[in-house]
Amino acid sequence: MEKLDMLYRGKAKELYSTDDPDVLWVKYMDQATAGDGAKKAQIQGKGILNNRITTVLFRLLEAEGVKTHFIRRISDTEQLNEKISMFPLEIIMRNTAAGSFAKRYGIEEGTALKRPILEFCYKSDELHDPFINIDGIVALGLATEEQMAEVSRQARDINDKLTSIFDRIGVKLVDFKIEEGVNPQGQIVLADEITPDTCRLWDANAKTGTVGHLDKDLFRRDLGDIIPAYEEIYDRLAALADREGIAVE
Amino acid sequence: MEKLDMLYRGKAKELYSTDDPDVLWVKYMDQATAGDGAKKAQIQGKGILNNRITTVLFRLLEAEGVKTHFIRRISDTEQLNEKISMFPLEIIMRNTAAGSFAKRYGIEEGTALKRPILEFCYKSDELHDPFINIDGIVALGLATEEQMAEVSRQARDINDKLTSIFDRIGVKLVDFKIEEGVNPQGQIVLADEITPDTCRLWDANAKTGTVGHLDKDLFRRDLGDIIPAYEEIYDRLAALADREGIAVE
Repeated sequence: MEKLDMLYRGKAKELYSTDDPDVLWVKYMDQATAGDGAKKAQIQGKGILNNRITTVLFRLLEAEGVKTHFIRRISDTEQLNEKISMFPLEIIMRNTAAGSFAKRYGIEEGTALKRPILEFCYKSDELHDPFINIDGIVALGLATEEQMAEVSRQARDINDKLTSIFDRIGVKLVDFKIEEGVNPQGQIVLADEITPDTCRLWDANAKTGTVGHLDKDLFRRDLGDIIPAYEEIYDRLAALADREGIAVE
Repeated sequence: MEKLDMLYRGKAKELYSTDDPDVLWVKYMDQATAGDGAKKAQIQGKGILNNRITTVLFRLLEAEGVKTHFIRRISDTEQLNEKISMFPLEIIMRNTAAGSFAKRYGIEEGTALKRPILEFCYKSDELHDPFINIDGIVALGLATEEQMAEVSRQARDINDKLTSIFDRIGVKLVDFKIEEGVNPQGQIVLADEITPDTCRLWDANAKTGTVGHLDKDLFRRDLGDIIPAYEEIYDRLAALADREGIAVE
């Protein structure tokens, strides 16, 4: 496999074409951003950790039947992914009120939600990723109604499975963002990444009165260094995969 | 029927209790507001016109089988309504991109939408009526999933019927906001008002290159006096009801 041209430089990853038109070469960077790009920093070691964490999580989900774009990790900071046609959507699942949801609806952060909430945002830097519902997605031609039914089913299924995975390592999955797309075989699959950059993860054994953030809120809210938290997540996930006999490369 | 205590003073209406616990006495005021209350004015004659317009529209919709809270008009500015338990929701239907929708998604105002869009906002002055989806509504306990299925069905049905009514009077129904609630018999019914305050109405015969606003955008955007536009809407609706043999008190 040969790395060719850079196709896209995102906030946390660079995407390159390869000599196989169906394969992307993805490099995880150390860059961290927050607040719609207003806050930006280089955090040494983040790229290595996120490349590893997303690898373990994709392998654990695949073992439970979830289809993903993931092919394999090829270096500390790089992996190969299927090249898929992405929906321009952030797909958000929430189990506990936090962040923008808590603020938008005036609910105290940490309040358990009566049931998981699925939200979509239209990925557009110039529009600042506005909230959108399925009617809007279909009317704007971002996906069809049938595709959105399948995306919604997968998002709820992935939430159930991820909640269980994190529960097994003593972590509460508060909320997360995923992205999906259509692979070369025409299947809707999980894509992008699942890392502490894209999930809110609270330590189930945090001291009383503390939240025990193990995610990017440490950076967003200036609460501390993210690297030990990301290492903690990686170590627990790797130990889980090892116990369950799942290879993680 | 006796008017008793004021229960609520809204932006455009005052609600009073009566000696019948199931009946509300509603007074339409001349006040106009826009921009989340930032802009406010008294516009003489608006209360009379909106009281009449909503009366005709409720009677026309009832003739097509839509259940409403409307009992009867009792004076120039007053009407009696069933007292119902309101959902704290703005229920918005859009047929053409305009207003906040056009701005939010970067679409030119006037663009036809591929299909009607149903949106909900959580009615809360302190939260500024945030956009919410059905998952959020159910999780926050604002309505049940079964209620939202019925509210959604009614909203789309009312959109079809209102679009046809306005089409018959040479007006394009761009978008509108309704409210619904549960009546004393336990039925979900249409409530609040349907007026040029709550609809975007464009004259189908407007001069080329003009929109022909016959709604509150004239006030919101300082485009002109709303009274002649509201009179035009009332006159056309009253003539339609007359042609169709529907009593409008």
